[in-house]
Amino acid sequence: MAKLTDISREDFSRLSLEAKRPYLERCEGDGLPYHTLFAQQFDRGILERLCTLANRIRFINKSREGALYLKTVLAHKRAMLYFSQPSSRTFLSHLAACQILGMTTGSVRDAATSSEFKGESHEDSIRTFSSYFDMIIMRSPEQGLAERMAWELSNSSRPIPILNAGSGKDQHPTQALLDIYTLVRSFETKGGLDGRTVTFCGDLMRGRTVRSLSYLLTNFRDVKQIFVAPQELQVPADVVMILAKKGIDFEVTDDLKSAVKVSDAVYMTRIQDEWDSSKGASARIDTSKFKFGAEELSLLKKDGALLHPLPRRDEIATCCDRDPRAMYWRQMRNGMWIRAALIAATFGLEKPIMDCGY
Amino acid sequence: MAKLTDISREDFSRLSLEAKRPYLERCEGDGLPYHTLFAQQFDRGILERLCTLANRIRFINKSREGALYLKTVLAHKRAMLYFSQPSSRTFLSHLAACQILGMTTGSVRDAATSSEFKGESHEDSIRTFSSYFDMIIMRSPEQGLAERMAWELSNSSRPIPILNAGSGKDQHPTQALLDIYTLVRSFETKGGLDGRTVTFCGDLMRGRTVRSLSYLLTNFRDVKQIFVAPQELQVPADVVMILAKKGIDFEVTDDLKSAVKVSDAVYMTRIQDEWDSSKGASARIDTSKFKFGAEELSLLKKDGALLHPLPRRDEIATCCDRDPRAMYWRQMRNGMWIRAALIAATFGLEKPIMDCGY
Amino acid sequence: MAKLTDISREDFSRLSLEAKRPYLERCEGDGLPYHTLFAQQFDRGILERLCTLANRIRFINKSREGALYLKTVLAHKRAMLYFSQPSSRTFLSHLAACQILGMTTGSVRDAATSSEFKGESHEDSIRTFSSYFDMIIMRSPEQGLAERMAWELSNSSRPIPILNAGSGKDQHPTQALLDIYTLVRSFETKGGLDGRTVTFCGDLMRGRTVRSLSYLLTNFRDVKQIFVAPQELQVPADVVMILAKKGIDFEVTDDLKSAVKVSDAVYMTRIQDEWDSSKGASARIDTSKFKFGAEELSLLKKDGALLHPLPRRDEIATCCDRDPRAMYWRQMRNGMWIRAALIAATFGLEKPIMDCGY
Repeated sequence: MAKLTDISREDFSRLSLEAKRPYLERCEGDGLPYHTLFAQQFDRGILERLCTLANRIRFINKSREGALYLKTVLAHKRAMLYFSQPSSRTFLSHLAACQILGMTTGSVRDAATSSEFKGESHEDSIRTFSSYFDMIIMRSPEQGLAERMAWELSNSSRPIPILNAGSGKDQHPTQALLDIYTLVRSFETKGGLDGRTVTFCGDLMRGRTVRSLSYLLTNFRDVKQIFVAPQELQVPADVVMILAKKGIDFEVTDDLKSAVKVSDAVYMTRIQDEWDSSKGASARIDTSKFKFGAEELSLLKKDGALLHPLPRRDEIATCCDRDPRAMYWRQMRNGMWIRAALIAATFGLEKPIMDCGY
Repeated sequence: MAKLTDISREDFSRLSLEAKRPYLERCEGDGLPYHTLFAQQFDRGILERLCTLANRIRFINKSREGALYLKTVLAHKRAMLYFSQPSSRTFLSHLAACQILGMTTGSVRDAATSSEFKGESHEDSIRTFSSYFDMIIMRSPEQGLAERMAWELSNSSRPIPILNAGSGKDQHPTQALLDIYTLVRSFETKGGLDGRTVTFCGDLMRGRTVRSLSYLLTNFRDVKQIFVAPQELQVPADVVMILAKKGIDFEVTDDLKSAVKVSDAVYMTRIQDEWDSSKGASARIDTSKFKFGAEELSLLKKDGALLHPLPRRDEIATCCDRDPRAMYWRQMRNGMWIRAALIAATFGLEKPIMDCGY
Repeated sequence: MAKLTDISREDFSRLSLEAKRPYLERCEGDGLPYHTLFAQQFDRGILERLCTLANRIRFINKSREGALYLKTVLAHKRAMLYFSQPSSRTFLSHLAACQILGMTTGSVRDAATSSEFKGESHEDSIRTFSSYFDMIIMRSPEQGLAERMAWELSNSSRPIPILNAGSGKDQHPTQALLDIYTLVRSFETKGGLDGRTVTFCGDLMRGRTVRSLSYLLTNFRDVKQIFVAPQELQVPADVVMILAKKGIDFEVTDDLKSAVKVSDAVYMTRIQDEWDSSKGASARIDTSKFKFGAEELSLLKKDGALLHPLPRRDEIATCCDRDPRAMYWRQMRNGMWIRAALIAATFGLEKPIMDCGY
């Protein structure tokens, strides 16, 4: 079995994502993660197992008895939420996931508190947390940090799992999981996700959610992807290259209405102007054609799905909010369920929960 | 039954408090609240039921077995404490109330974290929280926000209750509840609150607690109210108008000592100079006569009660602190009990808790 | 029995630490603390009982059943962590200790939130917390504050225990406890701590951990102490005086290598430049000889122990981290266990936990 204790940090960091995957598994060849670092860890089999487990947890939680049972499964464990890059939304979603499973939690979530750790190395901070907790859920502005910390902990005398809740610009694997889960659920009773057309619209250049979701969709059969954006914010070449290499059907366009007409799902995103190289650069781009309103809604298929990772600005008009095809609120709640599933799986609870009597 | 789903937000906002009340009930005509938004929701019957329930919870909690039973009643629920206007005192009191009932909690409680949500509408933020939690306890500097959010949630696909923990200058209903509960308890074994004289002293113009408590006292029979303040900080006309219309006996004066002599309860408040229109305006008012010290204590009836919503500055001398008539510390703790009662009632637990074997 | 209710605050504050001790006991003559204020409360008997209890809790917690049992023992209690001087490390360690015992917690841990309390006296703030919680774990930059608050609470209508998690420059008793616990454990199976040689190195002038640990070591038989530091940062005279008076063997030197050769344990500390009287004063001191690296490690006895209270800068080279004699990570985790033991003992749970069937 590939083990992080058998490879140096430098050698590990040089592996491709594909080659890293086995090092992160809970059990050899099983595929469920011990450390969750990047979206590419999840192949279709794992995605489906996690979605099934999330469905099961959601169902069990409906009854008071079921909810109380779930609160026992990890009642003996404690999770640390280490958010040196604040994000209340992602924080609360992971917190709720922990609470559903009965985990108690500690947290560092604001810049002021986390600055105390600036004097020491990340390695020392993480080992400190590992002294008190049984899992670390971390979010950081530093690319690759979660991966380094996973290696470090696995090579310490107190190895505990790392769950990457956003690491730099590149990876946010649980966001990708919840997006896939929402798509899977949207088409669950309608023949499934295979063969569908998914449109991405907005700032496709800088949104890490688009990158991850696009990749994960290649795990499904014949899912066509359409990228709708102003030229300056179109999907990066490396994303398109992966699709081309895999022989995935895709389209790049600036015509949202035409795309909506042929789409089963539309995934809207906001302009990520916080990454602008010069202040106001995004504001000079004409984004007026990349918004979803009443007219677009009227073009969307009857059983279509409208997604957004939130928060939104004006990419989706509020008049769409109560339409049954608007999935973005459910998407939020799905995030909690799939994270609960992921955490449960990390601690080897897939089978006990699937088989419990509730 | 009056339902928030049957009325537009605009129409609802235009109703009088009286007319709004039935829209906020848990069950038609029962009176216990689903959303708790303003003090005027509570008539005498509801106040007495909540006080009785608070007494019951306090009693049950005395034994270890009772405390552990209470921790089961809402163990399957999660509360969000959304404090965009920080207040550790009110925060901790609500937190403790949730914990007594076994609820797990998440929170946003500092300006820095809550500013993340500035990019999005309040409606979107609240719906986000409702994705992860089963109740929202919110405090905000924005007048009327809790009410808008209650309508919004009741009209969403995931309706959950709102508890207003302070909204702008106008409403802080749980503070009013704990004040009433403290008065009720103070005279519980001495013939009750009817027929008593209550004196308010300090900054009566700007304290929302005075406004709410004055109103709630009109629910009791023959409670005389005396308002003692410097002219610039006297009780506003609209408060007095309500009393006059209802035929309540009241008096407006600047003579604290005379008022204390005839009072059963004295409610001291601090000068709220944070609302000064020009810096230092309050400092120019002579407030020396509006402080409660050893002399005033000597004038207070033997079974009188001295209250203060805290924090205090020098409105009550510390030499009063150990007097049995000083109720302000008990008042704090009463806040926790009555909030626990309110939350329990919101989730339909009045009867189970009253009837439990502890 | 010596009671805080029988002595004025002023008289109490004037007592020697020795004379204060009986006032802080849970039960007369038993020695286990009710309030934990300073390291000098712990004599050898108490230290050994707490270490034994910590070992027991650590053992029980190894099995899921044991961990779930521990979570019941204080499930009916709530702790307040009041950190007006932020310290995530100490905060998280106490939090985890509470969670192990099933306590729920509330907290004030950042300057912004705690500044709300600036308008009121510490006495009022603490009484507020005591309204909602059953224990206060407090950290403050103000010397002697924990002691004042302990007296205050014991003389209030709601006495609850205070646990001092760091108070000014002088006292940090749980740090001293975890250091002793780590030393005791390091030599547990090797004949114990009596007769050993312990070297302190680094900033011995300003580190309160050195002061407390040096004192506690005098409880053990024939423990020699060696102080290694640049002249400007050597151990203060009053620490040395206590050793001299008690007839303890000690040495003051600037030769780390020679000290390491004859030591059973080496306790490294960082330069506390945050206390510099003028900016950069510490930077002008040559500290290059006071660092522990590969060479020092090679000189350390085979069964020696290397400690550090953390965080570290470069006082210990990371190449030492995986050596079995490096105790500093275990020291962190020991902090959690000994704090859990202390809290359990404070609530009278020593016997139930020692005798439980797990």
